[in-house]
Amino acid sequence: MNQARPRIVIVGAGFGGLWAAQHLADAEADVFLIDRNNYHSFLPLLYQVAAAEIEPGQIAYPVRAILRKLRNVEFVMAEVTGVDVQRQIVTLSDGELAYDYLILALGSRTHYFGVAGAAEYAFPLKTMAHAIILRNHILRCFELAIHEQDAEKRRQLLTFAIVGGGPTGVEYAGALSELIKRPLARDYPGIELDEVSVLLIEGTDRLLGALPDKLGDYTLERLQKMGVEVLLNTFVSGVSAETVQFSDGTTLATNTVVWTAGVQGETFAEKWELPMGPGGRVLVQSTCQVDGLERVYAIGDMMYLEQDDEPLPMLAPVATQQGTFVAQNIMRQLRGEAVMSFRYKDRGAMATIGRNAAVANISSRAFTGYFAWLVWLAIHLMNLIGFRNRLIVLINWAWNYLFYERVARFIFDATIDSDKTLG
Amino acid sequence: MNQARPRIVIVGAGFGGLWAAQHLADAEADVFLIDRNNYHSFLPLLYQVAAAEIEPGQIAYPVRAILRKLRNVEFVMAEVTGVDVQRQIVTLSDGELAYDYLILALGSRTHYFGVAGAAEYAFPLKTMAHAIILRNHILRCFELAIHEQDAEKRRQLLTFAIVGGGPTGVEYAGALSELIKRPLARDYPGIELDEVSVLLIEGTDRLLGALPDKLGDYTLERLQKMGVEVLLNTFVSGVSAETVQFSDGTTLATNTVVWTAGVQGETFAEKWELPMGPGGRVLVQSTCQVDGLERVYAIGDMMYLEQDDEPLPMLAPVATQQGTFVAQNIMRQLRGEAVMSFRYKDRGAMATIGRNAAVANISSRAFTGYFAWLVWLAIHLMNLIGFRNRLIVLINWAWNYLFYERVARFIFDATIDSDKTLG
Repeated sequence: MNQARPRIVIVGAGFGGLWAAQHLADAEADVFLIDRNNYHSFLPLLYQVAAAEIEPGQIAYPVRAILRKLRNVEFVMAEVTGVDVQRQIVTLSDGELAYDYLILALGSRTHYFGVAGAAEYAFPLKTMAHAIILRNHILRCFELAIHEQDAEKRRQLLTFAIVGGGPTGVEYAGALSELIKRPLARDYPGIELDEVSVLLIEGTDRLLGALPDKLGDYTLERLQKMGVEVLLNTFVSGVSAETVQFSDGTTLATNTVVWTAGVQGETFAEKWELPMGPGGRVLVQSTCQVDGLERVYAIGDMMYLEQDDEPLPMLAPVATQQGTFVAQNIMRQLRGEAVMSFRYKDRGAMATIGRNAAVANISSRAFTGYFAWLVWLAIHLMNLIGFRNRLIVLINWAWNYLFYERVARFIFDATIDSDKTLG
Repeated sequence: MNQARPRIVIVGAGFGGLWAAQHLADAEADVFLIDRNNYHSFLPLLYQVAAAEIEPGQIAYPVRAILRKLRNVEFVMAEVTGVDVQRQIVTLSDGELAYDYLILALGSRTHYFGVAGAAEYAFPLKTMAHAIILRNHILRCFELAIHEQDAEKRRQLLTFAIVGGGPTGVEYAGALSELIKRPLARDYPGIELDEVSVLLIEGTDRLLGALPDKLGDYTLERLQKMGVEVLLNTFVSGVSAETVQFSDGTTLATNTVVWTAGVQGETFAEKWELPMGPGGRVLVQSTCQVDGLERVYAIGDMMYLEQDDEPLPMLAPVATQQGTFVAQNIMRQLRGEAVMSFRYKDRGAMATIGRNAAVANISSRAFTGYFAWLVWLAIHLMNLIGFRNRLIVLINWAWNYLFYERVARFIFDATIDSDKTLG
């Protein structure tokens, strides 16, 4: 390795890190992209994996396949265990990597707000593994319920509580309701639909709080029509393997609490002695440089930056725009130029509710219904990486739509192993 | 449940069990199909999952989706822990199920012939979980090798030994060689192809012993041309995490030993006091009834039956033909008629080696090369269950063929969990 060339290390191959790597392809530098997984996940469709609509591989893309064209970027599959900004070193589970410039793009994790039992018993939905585990669990609940004679236990197995009325909660509630209403109803003729409940629990008085009221109202009405029981102004105070407790003292029997109510920056940043902002996020300047550090950037969900007195949202477009932006800032530094300030271009936000129904807020105009749904489909399909993934997701969506089906109803569990479980 | 109707219990939703269930759709009986997985696996393409060619969901089909049309068949997702032929009961991990007629279709498991360390360290390739674990392992070996400085350790990580020169061993050796030669070579430009070895180890003096000599010779030549090192007349005497030992006393350093050398009937049959034949298989009469039991049938890999002085092979067509046949025999018993004898119609056998290369023995005529390969593709595509699976497998095959690619290069491991591993 040419020691004269500066080394840029990027931690995380999500939207922020991957976009940064791609925009450093022309930099006079050696770039190292680190991730614990060998694939990039298209997280906006993660809830569809958890609802058996599509398969994991369809929203994943091998990082190395993306980097093949970039001659100066090397992939390192590893766990990052620490960052030492004094020595300019990233420590990995099996070694360390020195950097001249560092881009932290580790994303966010579920925030349980200290609710008792939530971290132990609730199902998060932030990673591919979470989605697979949740899908397997939902299908197992039905397999257990159909042979359960005790009506109460049966109802408990068939009660699905989703905590958090933001986009992920709304999208998963809609998707789960559609999975149950037709495909699972046909798979389990012995289960009556009125034994099954899908609940969406939100602490404030409306859904999709980040979007205009009109869209939240539409979403509420639509979900209710789909049979989702929406509880507004309702706080969860505890979760156990068999219940969810509310702050008003009532309790609901359920084996499934899905937690989409909060995200926070990866909490280890504190351990690494980086300046912390609200929500466990790393404080950055308008240049995306970490406060007090010239050569360390933080982008995406893990950084805290205000724009027009509002913190930037934890959304994919913020991460991709910042990834592209910090690549340019580092190239400016390499050329001895001054760094610039980031400005987020908000192109809007959207969420899908179900068949023919979505909400979108684009250029301050609010859309609902069929049109918004088509726009949602088109945008998500276009943004998937890889033509083949787009084609196969499209086939699966068409199949699901035309036949009221959910094609990926598999309990794939590598712990089910015929050589080990029998005999 | 109508107690007057007889109960037929089928254990195993593989080729044998599933075909039996489908042919009992018109029986005046309640049919229960038990499997530990909620999906049927198309095992002839399992090696392609292990070689990152296709995704698990593409060779899986939800059992309940198949049974939806069959009103008298109920699916039970459970582990079978025992069979009591005196009380006519199948015991499950969480209950028991009485039967009037029983069809045992549990398939086979890997046979290690008592080779030291093989059961602990070798990778079997008999179930979906095996295929996923093996694919993840192969990709991890490359991720570890590229950052390994020690040349010996590096070579050890990049040496892949496949034991067994039957169809599975041949197909996996070819598939692995093609995975490495183009897609992984492009993913890992820092690894030279001459650091990588794929070995196929066979105890006899030829490959594909069940097929005509001409086909084994062609296969040997073809695999050698593809860079696979074929060791004939070579016996493995031991396996460890870092070596494979041969009976001549030599040792090879490798982290990967894939074991395809033997299959045996599910060994628990002995525990259940069923009459045992060679290879751990249950002895059946020509009617497929278990020796000495009128109402218990065993079919497919798990039964031992000779035809024309040769034991029936452990192949999918035997299982499907017997599944269909025993359904008819049970319906004869239900009508008070005499049971009939099974006769296997051997329509041939085939194996694919790689791009444009397969061998086939159809109606005693031997085919090799491009034609055999096309026939292999067509037959396997047609036999997949579900139009959508066929379409998506076809797209993936076309993609892999046209772009010399392997599209499913994912290390999906539900134990990699961002909420638990970091912080």
